[in-house]
Amino acid sequence: MWKDRHMMISLADVLSAAERIHGRVRKTPVIELGREKPTSRGSVWLKLEQMQHTGSFKPRGAFNRILKAMEENRLPETGVIAASGGNAGLGVAYAAARIGVQARVFVPETAPPVKVAKLRKLGADVVQVGRIYDDAYRAAARECEKTGALFCHAYDQPEICAGQGTLGLELLEQIEGVETILLAVGGGGLFAGVATAVQGHARVVAVEPECAPTLNTALAKGGPVDVAVSGVAADSLGATLIGDLGYQVAVETRSESLLVSEDAIREARRFLWDDCRIAVEHGAASAMAALLSGAYKPERDERVAVVICGANTDPSDLAG
Amino acid sequence: MWKDRHMMISLADVLSAAERIHGRVRKTPVIELGREKPTSRGSVWLKLEQMQHTGSFKPRGAFNRILKAMEENRLPETGVIAASGGNAGLGVAYAAARIGVQARVFVPETAPPVKVAKLRKLGADVVQVGRIYDDAYRAAARECEKTGALFCHAYDQPEICAGQGTLGLELLEQIEGVETILLAVGGGGLFAGVATAVQGHARVVAVEPECAPTLNTALAKGGPVDVAVSGVAADSLGATLIGDLGYQVAVETRSESLLVSEDAIREARRFLWDDCRIAVEHGAASAMAALLSGAYKPERDERVAVVICGANTDPSDLAG
Repeated sequence: MWKDRHMMISLADVLSAAERIHGRVRKTPVIELGREKPTSRGSVWLKLEQMQHTGSFKPRGAFNRILKAMEENRLPETGVIAASGGNAGLGVAYAAARIGVQARVFVPETAPPVKVAKLRKLGADVVQVGRIYDDAYRAAARECEKTGALFCHAYDQPEICAGQGTLGLELLEQIEGVETILLAVGGGGLFAGVATAVQGHARVVAVEPECAPTLNTALAKGGPVDVAVSGVAADSLGATLIGDLGYQVAVETRSESLLVSEDAIREARRFLWDDCRIAVEHGAASAMAALLSGAYKPERDERVAVVICGANTDPSDLAG
Repeated sequence: MWKDRHMMISLADVLSAAERIHGRVRKTPVIELGREKPTSRGSVWLKLEQMQHTGSFKPRGAFNRILKAMEENRLPETGVIAASGGNAGLGVAYAAARIGVQARVFVPETAPPVKVAKLRKLGADVVQVGRIYDDAYRAAARECEKTGALFCHAYDQPEICAGQGTLGLELLEQIEGVETILLAVGGGGLFAGVATAVQGHARVVAVEPECAPTLNTALAKGGPVDVAVSGVAADSLGATLIGDLGYQVAVETRSESLLVSEDAIREARRFLWDDCRIAVEHGAASAMAALLSGAYKPERDERVAVVICGANTDPSDLAG
């Protein structure tokens, strides 16, 4: 089976992950923005995680999951398996190649050739199955049961979440007295890890597109439910169901959940290029959108970090 | 007159500049790259100055020149004047608007409408004169003589160079034991400032495109001479004559001067996007090109900083 029985993570897991993946991921920097409109109420820092290997935070979790299995002598010779044509697949392919194990990545036959090419360039064995993501996911699960390969979920596994949480440890170190961390939520892996890492020090605000409200809906309904997902950010925040870990951590930490409109996301992506020369994917602009649109209003002098979590985007429309 | 009589700068000038412009420019972060090909011999950091206001380092010098004149009660009511449709013009327009003085920026009638629009958006009064840059430059000089406005040269003034040098002070603070700083040279303002700032601590390597070798030619001929300039980086490194200050500092510090090919620049720009999700202008990719192409070969374990100095680029061709 590819889901672990004990689905929870602790600060200790994140600290172990940080030690485990040290030197394998980039410690991405932060930049403080000036006190200018439209971010003038608080002090605002951007965490530049789009400069991570493969263009998103995903290698953090992938390294942690694979290396922990190796430490415990339970990494099978059949290697690792992922089901994702997006950032998660790239993260697993990259980590596996660096560690020197085979990655098999399942994507639907409809996956764009450019994404398949990227996975192959990283050394992954790409398997194209079915017409939609769920077909690829189920084929990956069957393959795991058959071969015993290690499944790397896109978000809902403790080692994956703990790995992503290392970003939160860096933030605490990089921004003295950080109070609030705004981050985008898809399946909730980054959220679960970071909220666990910073608990007792800073609050995490979970930002989702109105068109992909997996956590927001789960909190309203009292548990994870499938939601219809669409919109400009669906390529990176396209999970239709919040992970159990993400949901549990949100409930336990009483984290705020906010939604942002499509226009707010587009405007934030535009702002990040025009004002900071940062080209990001729409999903990664969502957290900034909460600040710029006023969906999140910092107190005066509040110390706010905005996680810029990915840049696997076509920057053509940013010209001019 | 718009050229100062005493053309030299000292570390003290750079330190004063840092104090003067503090809080007005972004302290841009650095990121350490992993020890992977193609940068595996040394430790490599990128100085992410493309995230500076207006997308290049130029506001540092512009703020310093204008604020110093204000301090000395010699900023005329007629404001400041620049002659540039590129990064220097943007830097002056931005600094002037923040300080609250009028900027008049002279550009040729052939300047692309998108550049004129950017200057106007920053609040500058744009004057279009003549067909080539030199016509605009001479009109700006005449205007200064007539109105007494403060001329802000694109590179060859002590306050401009000292302001750009504040980037070097940041590097010394941000990278413990940095030994080598690779940076692109156009007119030599950034080079003069940074080489002055880090003298005695780190060496600066001046990198120019083969198609725009203003400093390299000056060093070979024993003094600044006009050179023909072309190529992919001409929009930002298009000065046809190295500044007196840049030349003098290069001679005094015995700095190394290197040339990189057009292909090397294109490949470095591609690398920065593919590997680090940094979209830069071709000129700003030149310093990285020296490292990637082997034009500069670090010693094993050498600590090398590469200045990413601008991103006023059309990122359309980076897709895929």
